[in-house]
Amino acid sequence: MIKAGIIGASGYTGGELLRLLVNHPNVKLELATSRSLAGKPVTSTHRHLEGFLDLNYENPDSEDIRERCDVVFLAVPHGSAMNYVPELLDGNTKVVDLSADYRLETSEFEKIYGIKHSDPRNAVYGLVELHPEVAKENFVANPGCFPTGSILAAAPLAAAGLIDIAVFDSKTGISGAGISPTQNSHYPNLAENIIPYKLTAHRHRAEIVQELTGLEGKLRNINFTPHVIPSIRGIFTTAHLFTKETLSTDDLKTIYEEFYRDRPFIRFPSGVPSLTAVRGSNFCDISFEADKENNRVVVLSAIDNLVKGASGQAIQNMNLMFGLDETCGLWMPATAP
Amino acid sequence: MIKAGIIGASGYTGGELLRLLVNHPNVKLELATSRSLAGKPVTSTHRHLEGFLDLNYENPDSEDIRERCDVVFLAVPHGSAMNYVPELLDGNTKVVDLSADYRLETSEFEKIYGIKHSDPRNAVYGLVELHPEVAKENFVANPGCFPTGSILAAAPLAAAGLIDIAVFDSKTGISGAGISPTQNSHYPNLAENIIPYKLTAHRHRAEIVQELTGLEGKLRNINFTPHVIPSIRGIFTTAHLFTKETLSTDDLKTIYEEFYRDRPFIRFPSGVPSLTAVRGSNFCDISFEADKENNRVVVLSAIDNLVKGASGQAIQNMNLMFGLDETCGLWMPATAP
Amino acid sequence: MIKAGIIGASGYTGGELLRLLVNHPNVKLELATSRSLAGKPVTSTHRHLEGFLDLNYENPDSEDIRERCDVVFLAVPHGSAMNYVPELLDGNTKVVDLSADYRLETSEFEKIYGIKHSDPRNAVYGLVELHPEVAKENFVANPGCFPTGSILAAAPLAAAGLIDIAVFDSKTGISGAGISPTQNSHYPNLAENIIPYKLTAHRHRAEIVQELTGLEGKLRNINFTPHVIPSIRGIFTTAHLFTKETLSTDDLKTIYEEFYRDRPFIRFPSGVPSLTAVRGSNFCDISFEADKENNRVVVLSAIDNLVKGASGQAIQNMNLMFGLDETCGLWMPATAP
Amino acid sequence: MIKAGIIGASGYTGGELLRLLVNHPNVKLELATSRSLAGKPVTSTHRHLEGFLDLNYENPDSEDIRERCDVVFLAVPHGSAMNYVPELLDGNTKVVDLSADYRLETSEFEKIYGIKHSDPRNAVYGLVELHPEVAKENFVANPGCFPTGSILAAAPLAAAGLIDIAVFDSKTGISGAGISPTQNSHYPNLAENIIPYKLTAHRHRAEIVQELTGLEGKLRNINFTPHVIPSIRGIFTTAHLFTKETLSTDDLKTIYEEFYRDRPFIRFPSGVPSLTAVRGSNFCDISFEADKENNRVVVLSAIDNLVKGASGQAIQNMNLMFGLDETCGLWMPATAP
Repeated sequence: MIKAGIIGASGYTGGELLRLLVNHPNVKLELATSRSLAGKPVTSTHRHLEGFLDLNYENPDSEDIRERCDVVFLAVPHGSAMNYVPELLDGNTKVVDLSADYRLETSEFEKIYGIKHSDPRNAVYGLVELHPEVAKENFVANPGCFPTGSILAAAPLAAAGLIDIAVFDSKTGISGAGISPTQNSHYPNLAENIIPYKLTAHRHRAEIVQELTGLEGKLRNINFTPHVIPSIRGIFTTAHLFTKETLSTDDLKTIYEEFYRDRPFIRFPSGVPSLTAVRGSNFCDISFEADKENNRVVVLSAIDNLVKGASGQAIQNMNLMFGLDETCGLWMPATAP
Repeated sequence: MIKAGIIGASGYTGGELLRLLVNHPNVKLELATSRSLAGKPVTSTHRHLEGFLDLNYENPDSEDIRERCDVVFLAVPHGSAMNYVPELLDGNTKVVDLSADYRLETSEFEKIYGIKHSDPRNAVYGLVELHPEVAKENFVANPGCFPTGSILAAAPLAAAGLIDIAVFDSKTGISGAGISPTQNSHYPNLAENIIPYKLTAHRHRAEIVQELTGLEGKLRNINFTPHVIPSIRGIFTTAHLFTKETLSTDDLKTIYEEFYRDRPFIRFPSGVPSLTAVRGSNFCDISFEADKENNRVVVLSAIDNLVKGASGQAIQNMNLMFGLDETCGLWMPATAP
Repeated sequence: MIKAGIIGASGYTGGELLRLLVNHPNVKLELATSRSLAGKPVTSTHRHLEGFLDLNYENPDSEDIRERCDVVFLAVPHGSAMNYVPELLDGNTKVVDLSADYRLETSEFEKIYGIKHSDPRNAVYGLVELHPEVAKENFVANPGCFPTGSILAAAPLAAAGLIDIAVFDSKTGISGAGISPTQNSHYPNLAENIIPYKLTAHRHRAEIVQELTGLEGKLRNINFTPHVIPSIRGIFTTAHLFTKETLSTDDLKTIYEEFYRDRPFIRFPSGVPSLTAVRGSNFCDISFEADKENNRVVVLSAIDNLVKGASGQAIQNMNLMFGLDETCGLWMPATAP
Repeated sequence: MIKAGIIGASGYTGGELLRLLVNHPNVKLELATSRSLAGKPVTSTHRHLEGFLDLNYENPDSEDIRERCDVVFLAVPHGSAMNYVPELLDGNTKVVDLSADYRLETSEFEKIYGIKHSDPRNAVYGLVELHPEVAKENFVANPGCFPTGSILAAAPLAAAGLIDIAVFDSKTGISGAGISPTQNSHYPNLAENIIPYKLTAHRHRAEIVQELTGLEGKLRNINFTPHVIPSIRGIFTTAHLFTKETLSTDDLKTIYEEFYRDRPFIRFPSGVPSLTAVRGSNFCDISFEADKENNRVVVLSAIDNLVKGASGQAIQNMNLMFGLDETCGLWMPATAP
């Protein structure tokens, strides 16, 4: 059994890691940390896990974590993970970092996040569908939630060198904003409404740019605008992609199915994707339609932001890092409706 | 492997049986029927199951069903199950009926549902926590969703002979009304609203009366009023129970924990139960508070109407009928938040 | 024109007073106060009022308020209104207090709220349908939101001496909890859920008891349990009333229509009341059904908590205090759907 | 008083016309028609209007309508209005048509809607902010809901000849789909989800193209993709506009404020627009942000689809057609929160 620890386990991504790991056939949950809640039962905050876990939150030092865990998931704020990684990796422990600290080139990270990076090492960007090489790594930077939905929607066309302009209009559930109440999560503000934010300069854009230009070096005109919708979970991305050639919907079908051949968590539903059909699951559902008049294609993707957009993808990475099938512990359908 | 068939698989309870059974370690899904959809893939209606099932809907006769299935779940409308049961039971096939046809005494059924019963056999009422004898049965009547929440909330006090008057004020998610659009499920009617119905004469009241008077013969004043709330899943029951003696919250704790000792799906959360903490799971979470001034106790219960209130409970029954642990295939936490 | 001031105008009830008063034909908005926002435009927090108001928040002393305003609405926290009332009333200014400070007998207030009362004067309880004598007052205590819905649902039967036991199971929108984010208002906690609280000891119960026993001295067994539902506005009350005599639904119709004859804001819809049909309006919609078997009647009431449950009712009081028709500025239909 | 009739009054736009007209100071409601409900009270379907209306649905012929009404609002399905218009206009009655029948050039209408047009007359497109000439007309084609939000978002830049490519990503509340339950309006399908449809070929695109090319003849690359969000009311439009020149946010401010100078229902909120801040009102709130890197500007608009997107705008047109101030009967703030 793989002994797993979660650093920063009291938030939504921590809770989701726990939910998925309690039934993972190859994992034993060894450790869940929280500075402020140390000593209290994990189920005092994650009440739905009552009966599945007998852990208390702890606040151990890095050496203790390293000795007790074969794998550590970092579910800590941006700028904080870099304080754990060097010491945790100083042994045989593998690390999946769910923060943004190692997703971008160091200089790009420093520019976008306004934080001096104390540990400028490289990490593989753990979007398994683009980077199967995570299987050889001890350390993986788990992608951001928005980039996961946007990159997966556009990667096949980007890799084919067909995109001229990309507009990602994304709609997220509010759980992406975290477990603490905010103005945006205040029910009277969000219900019956939609809240756009960071219209032109959301930090996740840098990940999208990095990965899509990694597929096609000349792609420059990449735009990303996120909105919060009245939903707990899910990220729905409407990608308006202007192409260099006129494509048909059949062309798209060929390109996408070929690109994602044998990727178990990519599905192409008949009809449009639905947040309902992925809720609680690790799938990314994708569909598309060509608009020949304006050389535009509309690509839609739906993920659960807490699963494929965070904790599920982290476990998918862990599975590969330990030589397991990538679906291990993740092969469950959505809780729909 | 137990070969399982679902009769009437295209609705929400059918879909939920499928969701839970695709990962059940001891079950092989053999058959899913739908008259109107025969020949079409099951995933054409239950899109979230894409990748998990390779079944088409069928419309076989009873002999065929009986020969192919070790267990059959009837997810058909009230009044329809009685047409299947006699033929299905004419062999070794076991049957769990999710309809109301066999939950009540025949005469009571005919009075409440206004339908002449063509098969007046007895069935065990499959609320496992009250009727562990389902383990010896080939045929079980799976409880209604509202009665599950109400009976579990009141049973310990009823069994102790302590209830004088019971008022069950229940709040259900709309999925209980089925997969077809209705006035109540029309988003502009339900969102930002609450819709009471059948204020004094809902048919599920008869099940509550039957089971509680089964525990305490003299209990008569039992009242039930349901409401639909803006939620997809879940039944939340507020039981206002006037007691014959003045009880403290500690008394209640003793009575409830004793009554439900070793029942794996009954939990007593700290704080109040939450539909979120049971969503997608088979748990019934219960809490209580005594109001000494008026000899009232307030008992709260939360279930997922499609799981513990229907399909999960049906599988719990199946597990016991086949000598399996009752948690088999059902031991998963809620998808929260 | 009546010059009106609002003390504590930055919250939801303040905003709702403003929304209703900007179009009141007999009122000129003179003053809106907020300590923390003094100097800022009122529309910086109440953005929907842009174009209707040219006021900045102020923080004047009581003398200034008294000199500038013919009427003052106190939309301040419980325990705070008592600091304003004596000075504001020391002149010709009339006051409608939306806080709880003067709703109860002083000793009862001190017991329930745990606050020493510094100004033990009496005030009329401004539920106009029971207390038309507000028309002769300079000072009125505006009722709580829950009590408004509960008392109006039960008053006709209480006045007839027919109630034996009353159970008020109330469901409120979250705006009643205020404009600041909280755990209960956090979208992932409230959406797809229902949150009961203060199961047996909510402070509003004391108002219900006071008013119903005021109608019928011997009525003792009064119970109140509130829940928050996923709705911004609205209070829906399900009153389970056990009666001393067996009543029919027709009896109820006679009793209720007679009791509320000529009350413009009480309506008896066909079918059940709906939060949608009262949203944004000052109506209280009521319906009822008798359950002869158990001598129970179910009475349902629906109000908008911010209008009839707070700010609209306050203006209804003001109208009468100034000799206006009580519907003045309030005669608008709900924003439905 | 202007005597007004509503043809097809039983749906949501009919109900909204009624809600707004019952308090319009210059209008007397004379007539509300419905074939299937003739003889029944209007409040039997629009329950929130109880107390405001004493009309029964009727089903009169055109001559009768013409004689009784100074103005007629057509709230009938597309393809049906053309059967009323010629006869209704054969006198002094003025007509505001809320259907699509006269919004487009006849040949364009026939192509887009697949319906042969029986009355190929011209009508002014009643978007008052672009077409103040409605004041001189007896007949006006009221704009579609989506085009209202999209055109108002882009018109200032289109008129300045600055748009190269326009992508309108719109999000609507479900009331736009009508009062009858559908798959999209089924609560379990829409709640916690977002449903895109007509990804590249929604019929409303033709109106957007017509009006924007009317402002700037060479503008060709216009794209429109709608989605339904979990909201009853509202249309939120995210316009991604690629411009021929690099603009700053200050440039946008100048252009927009100048273009909409003295338009009472256009507001520029600080921060982003909100469906909450326009709910129930006739406002269109607009904000914008320039993305200099890609010559993109993001313009956001929020309207209430049933008010500014339909019935409110129709009354705004009526006001001008009768020489009234355009705000008459419409000058009320949103019901927020």
